[in-house]
Amino acid sequence: MRRFLLFFALLSVAARPASGPGPMPAAVNGPLLGFSVSGSEAQRGLEARFDALLDPSRLDAWTREMTDAPNYVGSPKSKANAEMTARLFREWGYEAEVVRYDVLFPTPLERSLELLGPNGYRAKLDEPVLAEDASSAKRDGMLPPYNAYSADGDVEGELVYVNYGVPADYEELERLGIDVRGKIVIARYGGSWRGIKPKVAAEHGAIGCIIYSDPRDDGYFQGDVYPEGAYRNEWGAQRGSVADMPTYPGDPTTPFRASKEGVERYPAREAPTVMKIPVLPISYGDAQPLLAAIGGPVAPMGWRGALPITYHMGPGPARVRLRLRFDWSTAPAYNVIARLEGSEFPDQWILRGNHRDAWVFGAGDPISGHVAMMDEARAIGLLAREGHRPRRTIVYASWDAEEPGLLGSTEWVEDHAEELARKAVAYLNTDSNGRGFLGMGGSHALEPFINEVARDVRDPQFDVSVQDRARARARFEGNRSVGVSGDLPISPLGSGSDYTPFLQHLGIASLNLGFGGESGGGSYHSAYDSYEHYKRFGDVDFAYGVTLARVVGRATLRLANADVLPFRYEALARHVGRYVDEVTALVETVREETERHNTLVSSGAWVIAQDPRDALIPPDLEPAVPHVNFAPLLNARDRLAAAASAVDARSGAGPGDVQALNETLYLAERLLTHQDGLPRRPWFRHQVYAPGYYTGYGVKTLPGVREAVEQRDWVEAEAQIVRLAGVLDGFSASLEAAAR
Amino acid sequence: MRRFLLFFALLSVAARPASGPGPMPAAVNGPLLGFSVSGSEAQRGLEARFDALLDPSRLDAWTREMTDAPNYVGSPKSKANAEMTARLFREWGYEAEVVRYDVLFPTPLERSLELLGPNGYRAKLDEPVLAEDASSAKRDGMLPPYNAYSADGDVEGELVYVNYGVPADYEELERLGIDVRGKIVIARYGGSWRGIKPKVAAEHGAIGCIIYSDPRDDGYFQGDVYPEGAYRNEWGAQRGSVADMPTYPGDPTTPFRASKEGVERYPAREAPTVMKIPVLPISYGDAQPLLAAIGGPVAPMGWRGALPITYHMGPGPARVRLRLRFDWSTAPAYNVIARLEGSEFPDQWILRGNHRDAWVFGAGDPISGHVAMMDEARAIGLLAREGHRPRRTIVYASWDAEEPGLLGSTEWVEDHAEELARKAVAYLNTDSNGRGFLGMGGSHALEPFINEVARDVRDPQFDVSVQDRARARARFEGNRSVGVSGDLPISPLGSGSDYTPFLQHLGIASLNLGFGGESGGGSYHSAYDSYEHYKRFGDVDFAYGVTLARVVGRATLRLANADVLPFRYEALARHVGRYVDEVTALVETVREETERHNTLVSSGAWVIAQDPRDALIPPDLEPAVPHVNFAPLLNARDRLAAAASAVDARSGAGPGDVQALNETLYLAERLLTHQDGLPRRPWFRHQVYAPGYYTGYGVKTLPGVREAVEQRDWVEAEAQIVRLAGVLDGFSASLEAAAR
Repeated sequence: MRRFLLFFALLSVAARPASGPGPMPAAVNGPLLGFSVSGSEAQRGLEARFDALLDPSRLDAWTREMTDAPNYVGSPKSKANAEMTARLFREWGYEAEVVRYDVLFPTPLERSLELLGPNGYRAKLDEPVLAEDASSAKRDGMLPPYNAYSADGDVEGELVYVNYGVPADYEELERLGIDVRGKIVIARYGGSWRGIKPKVAAEHGAIGCIIYSDPRDDGYFQGDVYPEGAYRNEWGAQRGSVADMPTYPGDPTTPFRASKEGVERYPAREAPTVMKIPVLPISYGDAQPLLAAIGGPVAPMGWRGALPITYHMGPGPARVRLRLRFDWSTAPAYNVIARLEGSEFPDQWILRGNHRDAWVFGAGDPISGHVAMMDEARAIGLLAREGHRPRRTIVYASWDAEEPGLLGSTEWVEDHAEELARKAVAYLNTDSNGRGFLGMGGSHALEPFINEVARDVRDPQFDVSVQDRARARARFEGNRSVGVSGDLPISPLGSGSDYTPFLQHLGIASLNLGFGGESGGGSYHSAYDSYEHYKRFGDVDFAYGVTLARVVGRATLRLANADVLPFRYEALARHVGRYVDEVTALVETVREETERHNTLVSSGAWVIAQDPRDALIPPDLEPAVPHVNFAPLLNARDRLAAAASAVDARSGAGPGDVQALNETLYLAERLLTHQDGLPRRPWFRHQVYAPGYYTGYGVKTLPGVREAVEQRDWVEAEAQIVRLAGVLDGFSASLEAAAR
Repeated sequence: MRRFLLFFALLSVAARPASGPGPMPAAVNGPLLGFSVSGSEAQRGLEARFDALLDPSRLDAWTREMTDAPNYVGSPKSKANAEMTARLFREWGYEAEVVRYDVLFPTPLERSLELLGPNGYRAKLDEPVLAEDASSAKRDGMLPPYNAYSADGDVEGELVYVNYGVPADYEELERLGIDVRGKIVIARYGGSWRGIKPKVAAEHGAIGCIIYSDPRDDGYFQGDVYPEGAYRNEWGAQRGSVADMPTYPGDPTTPFRASKEGVERYPAREAPTVMKIPVLPISYGDAQPLLAAIGGPVAPMGWRGALPITYHMGPGPARVRLRLRFDWSTAPAYNVIARLEGSEFPDQWILRGNHRDAWVFGAGDPISGHVAMMDEARAIGLLAREGHRPRRTIVYASWDAEEPGLLGSTEWVEDHAEELARKAVAYLNTDSNGRGFLGMGGSHALEPFINEVARDVRDPQFDVSVQDRARARARFEGNRSVGVSGDLPISPLGSGSDYTPFLQHLGIASLNLGFGGESGGGSYHSAYDSYEHYKRFGDVDFAYGVTLARVVGRATLRLANADVLPFRYEALARHVGRYVDEVTALVETVREETERHNTLVSSGAWVIAQDPRDALIPPDLEPAVPHVNFAPLLNARDRLAAAASAVDARSGAGPGDVQALNETLYLAERLLTHQDGLPRRPWFRHQVYAPGYYTGYGVKTLPGVREAVEQRDWVEAEAQIVRLAGVLDGFSASLEAAAR
């Protein structure tokens, strides 16, 4: 009790600067971006009413109801949840429809993994029922741990431990003369999106891939394990897709096209993004006997996890047999699309989505975000009935089939690409939600806007804004790009949720929002992501669920009602300028590293720096790094900065004929795409943001140029510089026209 | 076989630049530092003859013989080894005597550690006999795992896990409101010298201290464990001293005085450097049940080791009882001191030592270094018989009682302080030796000299010099202070071996030399530091033992025979200049951190950046950092640079009356001491090098100033700046006089 009191005594001190003479007090009460003074007042009144309509107990009840059975795409529960969601949206005054796509969704028929020698072991591949978690006993229709879009296979071979299984790890293996050709690799989760691991393994000739959750990254090293604590226990395993999503997301058989009846499809097993080798996720309980049986060199320091063994790399003597067979049927994916038509601009759409499908119960992922979206939609629907219909159309989407690879959203976006390209103002995404700090990612043009929203919403645990808390956390962690006042930088988006088709395929400005950092957990994609787990370790009283509704509901309403759309391009120009600096500096870094490396290798110093008993194979010399012509990009950057300032000045000037201006503002993001897409992945069209080809989740900004530099493809780098400069020039020209 | 061939094919490429047009080829054949051209030729001839007298099989045989029983101070075997060593030295032509001191050396009468709750466990505290290691069965007279100079005690209390147990760890505990007063702490080995852990624990009010070897730092995380591999197994424990050596080393009862009959002594248990609380080292097998029983907050990320548990901090519910009782007798420490009188300058002594006592068998620590010294001494003795008597006197020392706290060397140095202050030219130390890379630490004035030696000795695994290999390793590891040519920087010395009384108490220029980096091991201070272990995992064919003899033998002979002593003060001035830059920059860093910290705390951001459920206690505001007057030190630095250049020019100019010059050169290091010593530890007189008061092994350069800044004692910092500037000025004045 003492600590508790002391804590709140301090809090009153802590809160003072945030509400007192702190940063931007004017903004808190001044006019909102894109609104007149009186409009701001009305809008703030509307938001107060909106806040009052939210209720955490509804989020709690919906969570319990929607997670009482496994609800993955194609499950009866997923359909029932879709119907319930549609029914509720209709009750709240939306035109809601359940939109079905038939998508490739392999489910396991056979899964077996055996250690054949030197010792024998048969992997359990099962998450046991826990007395403390009633959900875990609901085995009926539960999908066991598996990786969707793994190949079928019955393979046998020596094991090689490949750390996270990213390209840099294979360079280490090469030093040691370890070749994975004809071998089965075992990689730990982490360090990249999971689909990268089998992709890189197959590129190197491996015939199978096992992915396990190491307790270092996801287990007892992180915290007490379930059911005692929140973290992954010995038998917990992480399901998930291993489609090659950085090439394209969505149904692997129908890139660029919607998975509707009659669509032309790749044969299931031969679709370009389906993995070429069998892949299976296992628990650390199952991984330990396998890893302990591997011999060969001791793994490098950074490869070692938290199992109580010495990590070796192999190959062998551990030998395993991996058998996987899947039912390659399609499953019906049910998106719920709910429209609230705008009173003045029905053809300007504010899109708002969260996925609904889970791997098992999904209380955290995705229902925690979905129920926040529902209460937000309910309140906006009720406000419309009370006479506060939004000026622009709001479209809510409850996506199915996100888990296997953003299928629900991608197929819908591909289905409506032409209409969305004309009408979509912005897409606001949420996914799992938790307790803690607001994370803001998205199009940089929305940075001032979403910061303004974050300043206006209070944190449920402290009497400060959610922006103040996020700022405090960033400063505490030593993030030097965050000042004591002003906007927080928002993160560029890679991939991992449903904003990808909107932002990166069509060029629709997007935001991704959610709270986290205080709700510990290791239930991700396991049978233990249950109501029981979430109520003990997640946002237990749904206070952050309501707060998320406040943040995203405000953003939705302000976008729907603003006179001038709140896009501000100086923020974009500043960040793009920073990315340009990064890629130009990257070339110099690569040059210095190459020179250092080549000097070490060619002088023989590399060899004598090693222990000869390790019998390491010296690396090859790298080709020298040429000087690259960045001039077109530097010129485009400068033009962008000027154009952005001009159009922001125009936007800030207020009324007049804002319709043409608004259209330029929300269509501008389209001009950051190139219709040929990125090299080797034409589906990804955005030239500023993309998921990394070898990171999967992680963003690569200015991806065409940056990945060419990272791959040392200097010819492609020069070509991509020219392309990017052209794209930025077109974008600037549009802003310049609007500013006139 | 393939790898082996490939490797040697590469080697021939690798070796070329080192022996070809590489760095400093002239130096390899040109005159040696301090020798004339003809003198250099003679000296090189002598060294070739010296090399030919060395034989690894002798090192092997001596190691086997000297480690066939436990040989700690006071053991019959230690006396036998002393007698054997003295006899051999006499055979080789030395005047050798066994010099006895009676030193406080507590040995355990009772050791017991019990977990009283929530579960019961009685710690084994024993290293089992291994069939693969015959030595481990020699239990007769073996000291079990214990910490020398622990207090007696029978204490019972809740456990608190304190990570490495250094001051920063206690700041974390404070944040969490965890108080160790009346508790028993459990710390892991590493992060500091072991004696720091109970010292800091006692300062914070703990009543007992357990130190364990975590497998993360010293066990299966590092490599396969003994007897399968070299690393510490489940039941291996690290013995060692916990005297407060950063205050003074040597017999705790006789600081500044030799432990001879009739000397005034502190009562044993009340000596200032004897620990005030009971301390016991345990294995990770014994630690795991204790750590697993600790509750409370999960330990911070950096505190977590490699045991398969979630690390918690406590306090409790784990409750332990620790009972320790010691025999506080004195033991006879037998140093062997062997003199080979110089033919021309008998009163200029080149001192050369390695300790002989171990904790158990000590094949690695210290016998691997000791046998290299023996063969080196043998060869020098035989050369003298052949007519190549050294011009200066060489004194070999085989130290006893190093393990409990440098007692053998310290008592001898204290005994002969006045004579050593006049006669000692330099002290060359070795300790454990292994396979791999030459490590060079010591007085910076000897940097060019020892680099010259390292250029002239070949690595036994590659056809390059040991300097080339050390350089390659440093460059491979990204050490930017190492260039492609020129001298390698040598490391300043903290503590941990017998150079400390010479260098830091008397100001005798010292070097510490040894090979390592390729002989993996976790046998340190355990019963498994055996002949069997060393022959499998150490310098198995004693090739590096012979190489160490070549390096240190050359250094000894060159110092003994040089016309002008090879001290070069520009190197010292350059490093001191760098240290001055560091301490001035450190004040600015502390200032910035303080400002950042105070802004975070006073604005309340610190509080709202935390998870309120963690109930963290906000830190206090730090007093603002004043501006400190570094001018005296900057002026002294500049004067030192000029004086050093002048005297080096004089030294390089060759003959003339070099006797006065030589005396200045070797006495100069004395002028880097201050007779009042460092604040709170007058025994440590050197003003440039000291072991850190809170690191123990780790060096603090310019310790008076640096530690005052680190402790934010600005008044002391100003006073220490003035003192240090005065010391440096006195030193410069001496060089200036010699240069004239």
